[in-house]
Amino acid sequence: MTERARAKDQDRRAAWRVTLGNVIYNNDTPAGRLFDLLLIAAILVSVFTVMLDSVAGFRARYGPVLRQVEWALTLLFTVEYALRLISARHPRNYVRSFFGLVDLLSLIPAYLALFFPGAQYLLIVRALRLLRIFRILKLARYLSEASVLTEALRASLAKITVFLAVVLTLVTIIGALMYVVEGPKYGFTSIPTSIYWAIVTLTTVGYGDIAPKTPWGKALASVAMILGYGIIAVPTGIVTVGIAQAQAGRRGAAAGSAGSGAGRRPSCPRCGLEGHEPDARFCRRCGEALPGAGAEAGGV
Amino acid sequence: MTERARAKDQDRRAAWRVTLGNVIYNNDTPAGRLFDLLLIAAILVSVFTVMLDSVAGFRARYGPVLRQVEWALTLLFTVEYALRLISARHPRNYVRSFFGLVDLLSLIPAYLALFFPGAQYLLIVRALRLLRIFRILKLARYLSEASVLTEALRASLAKITVFLAVVLTLVTIIGALMYVVEGPKYGFTSIPTSIYWAIVTLTTVGYGDIAPKTPWGKALASVAMILGYGIIAVPTGIVTVGIAQAQAGRRGAAAGSAGSGAGRRPSCPRCGLEGHEPDARFCRRCGEALPGAGAEAGGV
Amino acid sequence: MTERARAKDQDRRAAWRVTLGNVIYNNDTPAGRLFDLLLIAAILVSVFTVMLDSVAGFRARYGPVLRQVEWALTLLFTVEYALRLISARHPRNYVRSFFGLVDLLSLIPAYLALFFPGAQYLLIVRALRLLRIFRILKLARYLSEASVLTEALRASLAKITVFLAVVLTLVTIIGALMYVVEGPKYGFTSIPTSIYWAIVTLTTVGYGDIAPKTPWGKALASVAMILGYGIIAVPTGIVTVGIAQAQAGRRGAAAGSAGSGAGRRPSCPRCGLEGHEPDARFCRRCGEALPGAGAEAGGV
Amino acid sequence: MTERARAKDQDRRAAWRVTLGNVIYNNDTPAGRLFDLLLIAAILVSVFTVMLDSVAGFRARYGPVLRQVEWALTLLFTVEYALRLISARHPRNYVRSFFGLVDLLSLIPAYLALFFPGAQYLLIVRALRLLRIFRILKLARYLSEASVLTEALRASLAKITVFLAVVLTLVTIIGALMYVVEGPKYGFTSIPTSIYWAIVTLTTVGYGDIAPKTPWGKALASVAMILGYGIIAVPTGIVTVGIAQAQAGRRGAAAGSAGSGAGRRPSCPRCGLEGHEPDARFCRRCGEALPGAGAEAGGV
Repeated sequence: MTERARAKDQDRRAAWRVTLGNVIYNNDTPAGRLFDLLLIAAILVSVFTVMLDSVAGFRARYGPVLRQVEWALTLLFTVEYALRLISARHPRNYVRSFFGLVDLLSLIPAYLALFFPGAQYLLIVRALRLLRIFRILKLARYLSEASVLTEALRASLAKITVFLAVVLTLVTIIGALMYVVEGPKYGFTSIPTSIYWAIVTLTTVGYGDIAPKTPWGKALASVAMILGYGIIAVPTGIVTVGIAQAQAGRRGAAAGSAGSGAGRRPSCPRCGLEGHEPDARFCRRCGEALPGAGAEAGGV
Repeated sequence: MTERARAKDQDRRAAWRVTLGNVIYNNDTPAGRLFDLLLIAAILVSVFTVMLDSVAGFRARYGPVLRQVEWALTLLFTVEYALRLISARHPRNYVRSFFGLVDLLSLIPAYLALFFPGAQYLLIVRALRLLRIFRILKLARYLSEASVLTEALRASLAKITVFLAVVLTLVTIIGALMYVVEGPKYGFTSIPTSIYWAIVTLTTVGYGDIAPKTPWGKALASVAMILGYGIIAVPTGIVTVGIAQAQAGRRGAAAGSAGSGAGRRPSCPRCGLEGHEPDARFCRRCGEALPGAGAEAGGV
Repeated sequence: MTERARAKDQDRRAAWRVTLGNVIYNNDTPAGRLFDLLLIAAILVSVFTVMLDSVAGFRARYGPVLRQVEWALTLLFTVEYALRLISARHPRNYVRSFFGLVDLLSLIPAYLALFFPGAQYLLIVRALRLLRIFRILKLARYLSEASVLTEALRASLAKITVFLAVVLTLVTIIGALMYVVEGPKYGFTSIPTSIYWAIVTLTTVGYGDIAPKTPWGKALASVAMILGYGIIAVPTGIVTVGIAQAQAGRRGAAAGSAGSGAGRRPSCPRCGLEGHEPDARFCRRCGEALPGAGAEAGGV
Repeated sequence: MTERARAKDQDRRAAWRVTLGNVIYNNDTPAGRLFDLLLIAAILVSVFTVMLDSVAGFRARYGPVLRQVEWALTLLFTVEYALRLISARHPRNYVRSFFGLVDLLSLIPAYLALFFPGAQYLLIVRALRLLRIFRILKLARYLSEASVLTEALRASLAKITVFLAVVLTLVTIIGALMYVVEGPKYGFTSIPTSIYWAIVTLTTVGYGDIAPKTPWGKALASVAMILGYGIIAVPTGIVTVGIAQAQAGRRGAAAGSAGSGAGRRPSCPRCGLEGHEPDARFCRRCGEALPGAGAEAGGV
C-alpha cells in the first residue's frame, strides 16, 4: 500500500470525521460559524459563572445553580475536546498546539475541584480560549498585527533576559541593603520581604504597604526610585526598537514579495545606472531597455 | 425646478441664516470672533460652577446662586444648539459630528437632573467643548500636530486592540490565581475584586488598598509586577513607532507638495505612468522622454 | 562723538569692570576658576543650610547659627548680583537671561522672610544656580546633549500641548464621573478632589489616599487605569521621536557644516551622476573631474 | 635576560598554574565546566542561606546550621579567590576587573560580621557573581545583546547625567514648595522629607505614606504629577534612541564584515583613499580606476 493510497484510505474512513472537523475547525460554512459563536458564548458564560461564584453574596444565594452550570459546561467542553481529538487531521499537532493545551488546561480544574475545593476558580483559565476570537472572526489584520508584536518580543527575548537577570540581581541587593538599613522594626521583616518591597518600588507600583521610615532608608529608597526611573526605560526601549524592526521587516518583505524575483533590478546595460524600480522596463536615465523587463511588465 | 435653481432658492431663503451661520461657525469676522470668545467664557463659567457646586462648603453657602447660574447657562446653551441647527449648512452633518454630539451631550444632564438629583454634575462633560479652542484660535499648527497623534493612534489601533485583549485575559487569570492564593481573608474578597487588584498592579498604579499579605501571594505579585514592567513597554513601543511613521509620512507628503515640479514628476506623456524618480529622464515603462527632463538633469 | 568712539570710551571707563567681568563671567583664568568654585561651594552651603533649617531637630539646636549663615550668604549673593550687573557687557541681557532671573529669584525669599516667616525656605530655589555647573566646568559635551534634549522638547511642544489639553479634559470628566458614582461617602468629597484622584490614577502614581470602594467605582477606575496605560505611552512616543529627530538633525548638520559649501555636490558634467561625497574630486562612475573639486580638496 | 626569555621563564614556572587557570577561567574542558557548575551551585546555596537566615522563623530554628553553611562557603570562596589570584595570567587585571571586584566584595561582609553583627546579610552581594552565568554558559548571543544595552547606556550617559541634574534640582524645589504649602502638620515634616515625597511622586511610585491634604497642596501635587508624566518620557526616549543606534551600528558593522569584498571597497591604488561607495568605479579623489570596478559595475 503506497503512501498515497494509505492517505486516501484514511480519508475514506474519516468521512464523518471530515464533516465534523469542518464544523469544528473551519468557519466558512454556516454550521462552522454557528458552532464557533455558540462556543464563545459558552466560554463567556463559564467565565462569568466562575466570577460570580467567587462573590460571597452570589454564592450564598445562587451557589448550587452556579455549580450546576459550571458542571454542565465542563461536560460540554469535555465532549468538545474529545470531538476535536477525533476530528482533527493531526490529533498530535492539535494536542501540542497553544490552543490544544489551553483547551485541556481549562478542563482539569473542574475535576481537580472534586478533591481540592477551591480549584474550580482556576476554571477562569478558560478566558484564554477567548483569544481564539481573533481567529474565529477571521480578523486577519489583527492576527497580522499580533504576529508583529510576537515577532518583536521574540527578537527582543535575549535582550529582555539579560535585562531581567540584571534587574533580579539589583532587586536582591537593594532588598538586602534595605533590610540592613531599616530592619524588621519598620516592616522590612526579612530579606525576601525586602526584595518584594524592592520589586514594588523599582516597577513604580508602590503599594505603600511597606515604606521606608528612617532617613537613611528614605535616602536609599530615593536612589532606588531614581534608578528605577532609568531602568523602566530599558524594556520600553528594547520593545520599541523591536516593534520598529518587525514592522520595517514586514514592509520590506511585502515589497520584496510583490516585486517577486525583481527586488533587486539589474543595472542598465548601456549607462550602468542602478536602483531601478521593480516595474521599470526602460532605464530612467538613457532610455535603454532593461534586461528581463518584458516578463516583469506583465507580472506587476 | 432644476437642482441648481433649488440650491439657489434655498440659499435665498437662508439669507439671515447664512449671516447667523457666519457668526457661529466662522471666526474671521469680528462678530464671529466675539461670539467664540463669549462662548468659551460661558463654558468655563459653567464648568467652574459645576465644580464649586460639588464642594460641600460652597454648596451650603452659595447653592441657590450656583444652581441659577447653571440653569441660565443651560438655557443659553440650549438656544445656542438650536441656532447651530438652524444656521448649519448641513444640519445632519453637524448633529453627527464630534462637536455636535458633545454639544447635545452637554445639555442632557441639566434636564436629567430634574428627575435624578446629582446628574447635574455630569454637566462637567461641557469641558469637552473647550477642545474647540484649538479650532477657534486658528491654531493650525496644533491641529496639524493633533492629527499626527490621531493618525498614529488610528494606525496603531489594531495592535492596541490585540494588546488590550491579551492584557484583559492576563489580568483575569492573575486575578483568579491571587484569589485562590490569598483568599478573602486578606482583602481579595472575590475574583472581580482580584481582577481590579491585578489591573491596579499591572498598570503600576498601585493604590495599596489591596496588597498581598502571604509569602506566596507576594511571590505571585512580584511575578505579575515584573511582567507588568515588560507589558507597559508594549503600548509605548506601539505608539512611538506609530508617531514616528505618522510624522515621516507627513514630512514625505509635505516634501512632495513643496517641491512641486521637481518632487512630483509629471506623468509620462505616452503611457501616463506616474511616480517617476526625481532624476528620471525617460519613462521607466515605455522609454518615452519625460517632459522637463533636460532641465531636471542639470538642475538637481 | 561717533558710535565707535563712544564704544571705545565706554571700554576705557570700564577698565576695572572688564577685569571684574573676566573674573565673574569667564573661567579661563585661575582667578575666574577660583571664583566659580567658591560660588558653587557657597550655593551648596546655602541650599543645605535651608534644608537643615527645616528639620525640627536641627532648628531647635542650631536655629540661630543657621539663620546667620543664611543671612551672610544672602548678603554675599546680593553683592555678587550687584557686581554681575556692574561688570556685565550688556547688563540688560544678563538680567533677562535664564541665569539672571534665577540669580535675582534666589535673593528675594530672604528679604520676603522679613515680612512673611517661612518664605526663607523658598531660598532653596538657589539650587537652580547649581545647573551653572555644566557651564562652569566647560562640560561642552553635556551642554551639547542638554541642547539636544531642549531641542527635542521644543519641537514636541505643540504635540505636548495638544496632549495636555486632552488629558486635562479627560481627567476632569473622569473625576466628575467618579464623584457621581462613588460620592463623598468614600472619600470623593468634591469634583476637584475627584479630579485630583483622576490625575493620581492616570499618571500611575497611585497614592491610595483616595481609592474606589464600590464595585461600579472600581470598574470605572479599571477603565481609567487601562486608559492611562495607553495615555502614558503618548508623551513617551512624542519625546522619543523628538530626540531621535533632534539627534539626526544634529548629525546631519555636523556633516553639512564639515563639508561647508559642498553639502550638496553638483552632478557629474559628463555622465550626470548625482550624490557625490563631499570630498569627491572625480566622478566615481566615469572618472570626470567634478566642478569646484579643487577648492574642496584643499578644504576638507 | 631578554623580555622574551623572561616571559618564557615565567610560563615555565607557572606550569601547574596554567593548568589551574584553565580549570578556573576556561570552560572548554570537562574539568573547567564542572568547576563552573559547582561554583554557581555554591553561590546559589550561599545566597539562599543568607535569605533564609534573615527570616525570623528560620533563624530561630536553623540559625546555627545556616551560620555554619555560610562560614563554610565563605572559606571556600576565600580559597577560590586566592587560587584565582595565583593562576591568573595578569593578576592585576583580574583584581581590577568587574568580576574581580565583585569576588572580593562578596568575601568582606563575612569577616565584617565578626565585628558588626548584621553585616553578614550583605553577603547577598554574592548574587552579582551569578551574572557570570552568561559568560560561563557561553551564551554568546546574550553577551552580544548585553553589550548592545551597555553601549546604548554608555552613549546616553551624558544625556542621562544632564537629565538627572535637572530632575534632582526640580525635585528639590518642588519638595521645598510643598514643605511651605503643606507644612509639618500634614506629614511634610522637613524639606528632605518633602524631597523624598517629590521623588516618590515624580517617579510615579506613589507609596501614599505622605500625601497632600490641603487643596493647594493637592493642586501643586497635580502639577508635579503631570510634570512627572512628561519627565518619565525623557529617559525612555534617550534609552530607546540609544538602543536603536547601538543596534544599527552593530548591524552596519556586521554587514561590513559580512559583505567583505563588496560592502568594503578596496582602497584606491594610487592615493589610498578608503570608503568608496559600492558603485564607485573611479577614485573620487584622484580619478584612478578602482580595482574590481568592472566586475562591481555589472554585479551590483
